[in-house]
Amino acid sequence: MQTLRVTYHLAVGGGAAAARAEEVAREQTVEVPRAVLRDAFLEEGVVGRVESLAPDADGGQRASIAYPVETTGFDPAQLLNVVFGNSSLHDDVRCLDVELPESLLAALGGPRFGIQGLRDALGVHDRPLTCTAVKPMGLSTRALADLCGSFARAGIDVIKDDHGLADQAWSRFEERVVACLEATRRAADASGRQSLYVPNLIGTPERLRRGLAFAQERGAGAVLVSPMLVGMPAFFELCRERSSVPVLAHPAFGGALRIAPRALFGKLFRLFGADAVIYVSFGSRFSQGRAECRELADTLLRPWGPLLPACPVPAGGIRLENVAEVVEFYGRDAMLLVGGDLQLDPAGVEERSRRFVETVADAARALRGAA
Amino acid sequence: MQTLRVTYHLAVGGGAAAARAEEVAREQTVEVPRAVLRDAFLEEGVVGRVESLAPDADGGQRASIAYPVETTGFDPAQLLNVVFGNSSLHDDVRCLDVELPESLLAALGGPRFGIQGLRDALGVHDRPLTCTAVKPMGLSTRALADLCGSFARAGIDVIKDDHGLADQAWSRFEERVVACLEATRRAADASGRQSLYVPNLIGTPERLRRGLAFAQERGAGAVLVSPMLVGMPAFFELCRERSSVPVLAHPAFGGALRIAPRALFGKLFRLFGADAVIYVSFGSRFSQGRAECRELADTLLRPWGPLLPACPVPAGGIRLENVAEVVEFYGRDAMLLVGGDLQLDPAGVEERSRRFVETVADAARALRGAA
Repeated sequence: MQTLRVTYHLAVGGGAAAARAEEVAREQTVEVPRAVLRDAFLEEGVVGRVESLAPDADGGQRASIAYPVETTGFDPAQLLNVVFGNSSLHDDVRCLDVELPESLLAALGGPRFGIQGLRDALGVHDRPLTCTAVKPMGLSTRALADLCGSFARAGIDVIKDDHGLADQAWSRFEERVVACLEATRRAADASGRQSLYVPNLIGTPERLRRGLAFAQERGAGAVLVSPMLVGMPAFFELCRERSSVPVLAHPAFGGALRIAPRALFGKLFRLFGADAVIYVSFGSRFSQGRAECRELADTLLRPWGPLLPACPVPAGGIRLENVAEVVEFYGRDAMLLVGGDLQLDPAGVEERSRRFVETVADAARALRGAA
Repeated sequence: MQTLRVTYHLAVGGGAAAARAEEVAREQTVEVPRAVLRDAFLEEGVVGRVESLAPDADGGQRASIAYPVETTGFDPAQLLNVVFGNSSLHDDVRCLDVELPESLLAALGGPRFGIQGLRDALGVHDRPLTCTAVKPMGLSTRALADLCGSFARAGIDVIKDDHGLADQAWSRFEERVVACLEATRRAADASGRQSLYVPNLIGTPERLRRGLAFAQERGAGAVLVSPMLVGMPAFFELCRERSSVPVLAHPAFGGALRIAPRALFGKLFRLFGADAVIYVSFGSRFSQGRAECRELADTLLRPWGPLLPACPVPAGGIRLENVAEVVEFYGRDAMLLVGGDLQLDPAGVEERSRRFVETVADAARALRGAA
C-alpha cells in the first residue's frame, strides 16, 4: 500500500506523545472515536499509522504518521486536508514535513517548465537569474511601465508585478499588461536582450482564467500567482490545465508558522506546479535564517520523482551591497529578487539596476573561476 | 475616503511599537522603503495609516491600521493580501480583527440565504437546528447511505458529508450523492419530514463547479465546502456566482493561530458568502473557550451592513450528555453538529440520533419557557 508520510511537531510531554499522535492519525482521516472503528478495513486501509515518535531537538515531540495515499483521492485540496486539515486548528500541532509516494507525484505532476524552462526562455544558463518588482501599488500605469522600461534597459532578466498589483482603479490589469509588455519590447529592440515581464494574476478562479488568457494572448512569457491567496487548488489548476507559460509562486498569506516553510513553499508549491518559488531570504525584514534558506532552496532543486526542479527565488533581504554574498550562498541555480532597493534614487533606477545585473554576473564569474 | 481597518497583535515592546506598526502599514500596501515614497498621493491615498497603538492585555502591542479600500480592488484575494499577505510571514505579527467599509460589504455581498434561508428550507423556526456527519472515510457508499437513512429517520435536520469525504476509490462522489439523497427521501416518505443531505465539495475550481452542478441537479438542498482547503476566492465564486443552494463552511486548514478565529471564521467566511459556519466549540478536543465561542457566534449573527446573518454551527465538543447545556449557551440561533458520538453503539445509531433530536427540542422548549 502506498502511503504519504507527514511529520508533525507535538507540543506535549513524552508520556502523552503516543496517545496524542494516535489522535492526530485519526483526526486527519476517519475523525471518529476509536470505538466507532469496527471495520478491519478502516483500521488497516484508511486510518493514519504512527510510524515513529521521538523527542524533538526544540522540545516537545516529533511524530511521523503514514496515511494511505487513497485517502487523498489524488486531489490537491483533499491532500491538504489529509496533511493538515483539522489538525491545523490544534494549538499543539505543527506540520513540519511531507513525503509523498510516486503515485501522488505522478498524479499532480509539479512544474511543467521548472528552472531549466525559465533558463531556456531567457537564454541564460551560466549564472543566477535576476529579478525585480514593478511597484509600489498606487503608481499610474504610465509610471509603472516607465519603471519596467528602466529595469529592462538595465538588463534585468525577470520583471514581475508586485504581488499587490491587482486590478485597482489607479492601474487596471489589462492596461498595465499591455503597457509593461510594450516597455520591455522597446527596451529589447534597443539592447537586443528580451526581459520577461511577469504580470500578477489575482482573484477568483474565473478572474485568474481571464487574466491568464489576456496576458498570454498579449505575449507575456510568464505569470506570477500567490497560491495561498488564490487557494492552492486554484493555483494547481492554473499551472496544470491552463497556463502555457512558466508560473512564479509568491508566498503571501503563507503564515509560515504552523506549517514549516520547507513543507509549504519547498514541497507543496512545487508539487502543485510552481516553476519558480519566491521566498524570504536571510538577512531580511523577515526571520528566516541561513540554514532554513539553504534547506528550502535544496528542497526546490533536488530530484523528486518525475517532478522538474523549481527555481528558488530568494527575496526580501537582498540589497546591492550583499548581492555578491547571496550569489556565493545560493550558487548558479537561483533567481535573485531585489525590490525597493533599486528605486532608492528616483533618477538612478536604471543605473542602480544595471549595477545589480553586473554584480550578479561578476559574482557568478568569480564562482565559476573558484570552482 | 473609505478604509478598511485591521487590528494586529505585535509581539514587540512599547518603545518599538510605533515603528513596527508603520512598517506593517507599508508592508501590506506599497512594500517599499519609506524613502521610495516620493509621491504625495501614495502617502495619502495608498499606504496604510496607523490609527491607534496600545499595550495588549496579553503582552505585546495592539495596532489598528486603516487601509484605503481601493487597495483591495474589491477582489476577495486582494482583500486577503491587504489584510494579512506578507505580514502573515512575520513571526511577530498576528491578525486579530477586520472592520470593513460599506462599499466592500456591498461588493462582496456575504450569505445569500443565511440562517433564515436555512430555517425556511427546513421549516424549523423555534429551536436550534441539528446536524451530524456521514462518516468515517473508508466506508462504502452503501454503508454511508445506510447511516444517512438512520440519521434522517431519527429526524436530524442537516446530514452532511464528513469534510474528508472526497472522491476516493471506496466511495465515489457522484455515487454517494445519489445514494444519500435517495436514503433521505425514503426516510421522508415514511416520516413526512425532509432532512437536508449536504454533500462535501472539494477539489480544484473546475471540480467544485462540476460537483455543485451534479449535486444541484440531483436535488441536494445545500452543499459543504472548506474555504481554506479550496481557497477563499474559489469559495466566494462558488457562493456568489454558482450555487443556488445554501453553502455550509468547514474550518479545515484554518490554522487559527496567526489569524484570530473571529476574524477568519466569523467575518471573512461570512463576507465571502457562507450561509452557515462550522467551528470548534468549547469543551472539545480543540482549545477554544466559551468566551471565544460566544464572540464567534455573535459575530456571525450580528447586523453587518447589508449582509445576512450566517448560522453558527458549533461542533467538535458536543455529546448527547451536554447537548442541553450547549442549547442553553447558544440559544435558538445555532445548528448543533454532533459527529462520531452518535455512532458509539453500532446497533443504536438511529436511537441515539433520535435522543439528540429530542434533547435539542426539549432544551429549546425549556429556554422558551424561561424567557
